[in-house]
Amino acid sequence: MCELLGMSANVPTDICFSFKGLRERGGRVGPHKDGWGVAFYEQKGVCIFKDPQPSYESEIARLVSDYPIKSNAVIAHVRQANRGRIGMENTHPFSRELWGRNWTYAHNGQLSGYADLPIDRFTPVGTTDSERAFCYLMSALDNRFPNRPSRRISAFNFLQKEAKKLNKLGVFNMLITDGEYLLAFCSTKLQWITRRAPFGKAHLSDIDVDIDFSTETTPNDIVTVIATEPLTGNERWHKMLPGEGQVFRFGEPL
Amino acid sequence: MCELLGMSANVPTDICFSFKGLRERGGRVGPHKDGWGVAFYEQKGVCIFKDPQPSYESEIARLVSDYPIKSNAVIAHVRQANRGRIGMENTHPFSRELWGRNWTYAHNGQLSGYADLPIDRFTPVGTTDSERAFCYLMSALDNRFPNRPSRRISAFNFLQKEAKKLNKLGVFNMLITDGEYLLAFCSTKLQWITRRAPFGKAHLSDIDVDIDFSTETTPNDIVTVIATEPLTGNERWHKMLPGEGQVFRFGEPL
Repeated sequence: MCELLGMSANVPTDICFSFKGLRERGGRVGPHKDGWGVAFYEQKGVCIFKDPQPSYESEIARLVSDYPIKSNAVIAHVRQANRGRIGMENTHPFSRELWGRNWTYAHNGQLSGYADLPIDRFTPVGTTDSERAFCYLMSALDNRFPNRPSRRISAFNFLQKEAKKLNKLGVFNMLITDGEYLLAFCSTKLQWITRRAPFGKAHLSDIDVDIDFSTETTPNDIVTVIATEPLTGNERWHKMLPGEGQVFRFGEPL
Repeated sequence: MCELLGMSANVPTDICFSFKGLRERGGRVGPHKDGWGVAFYEQKGVCIFKDPQPSYESEIARLVSDYPIKSNAVIAHVRQANRGRIGMENTHPFSRELWGRNWTYAHNGQLSGYADLPIDRFTPVGTTDSERAFCYLMSALDNRFPNRPSRRISAFNFLQKEAKKLNKLGVFNMLITDGEYLLAFCSTKLQWITRRAPFGKAHLSDIDVDIDFSTETTPNDIVTVIATEPLTGNERWHKMLPGEGQVFRFGEPL
């Protein structure tokens, strides 16, 4: 099993506070020591840091948790390997281009029968069930919409239906984004919180760190954070139901 | 114009020394202040750091120049923008998956008529001539070899021929790799050096840094470095001719 972290925001926002919490679960307070990764979008462009080292020890993860990289959409993952060796090619998030957009994805769970999932123009580089499922999703999307649909939300509604199919193969908690829309799909556990004015204070569950969002934001900011388990102890997170999907755009649940 | 840096090695090798030199050209001794990026391969997996900030000021570039990330193949780039705004989506290296391999590419130069280059299943995310040319190359490769050729060198020989065509549109110095093979194509300037035993000392041209490779290597190591201009002042680099291509694999010119 692994841990997921996602963010959707209406203004470029850094993920330092939440990533600090996630990073602790990468080999210190959690067992997820088999690599980690994080994708930051700056408009349509994406930069993906990944490292097969435990995030708790990784120099790169230290940088990511201290250095504010501002982004409208983020997907992060810490890994506890089950399918596929520990290595860069099996480290999430995975990424592919379709319709001139960068698509990024991360998965928590385990699937059976994944080797039979049909893929078409997207081929896994590594050997995980997760990347195979991603290539399945992207191939299905490409087959369903050979040209980019005029309403991009249609693509995410389609992905949500496909995620329900994958969920029948095992555990499939998943985040996928094109940098603007972000779909969170809950198989067993996934929770989210939308922060907006009036902003308050928050305290991380996994490490003794506080933040006062009111000093870090403007009154118009809307920021949603999605995580396997709540990262803060003093806020109310929305717990998703098994089989439930939720699309976000610019911080707002749609 | 921009600066390119590539590495091919038979053992996982870090690029800290060479990247230190390149980084200096990113806004301090050179005019290439419009972003930078570097792709590190660990077997078939790749991690690409990129940042639209000048490399000389970038915290991420500081990490990359100090923290030894061991790799068999590296492509790095510092950018001086001509086509396309400064931004993440226009920052090299660019990357796409084909045949279950991660392909990474960077370009130095400027092309005219690039908007007419035919593309098929690979679409640019940004607006540079460079990414359009990359999508052209990858689409042509996919059309020529719908399935992965049994001898992967055939793909690189094909890319070399296509690079000659692109070179007619302007200046097209270019590096492309699938993590194992690396093609360097020289339009106007590109030089390379292969280091092997007996290893000696080297001194960077752009900053006062020395290295004694004999203390950093084993006698079997073979490491080729490719750069727009020689990065060291006391070694003999092989200057490529305009229109010349060279493929490397595990440090050896083929």
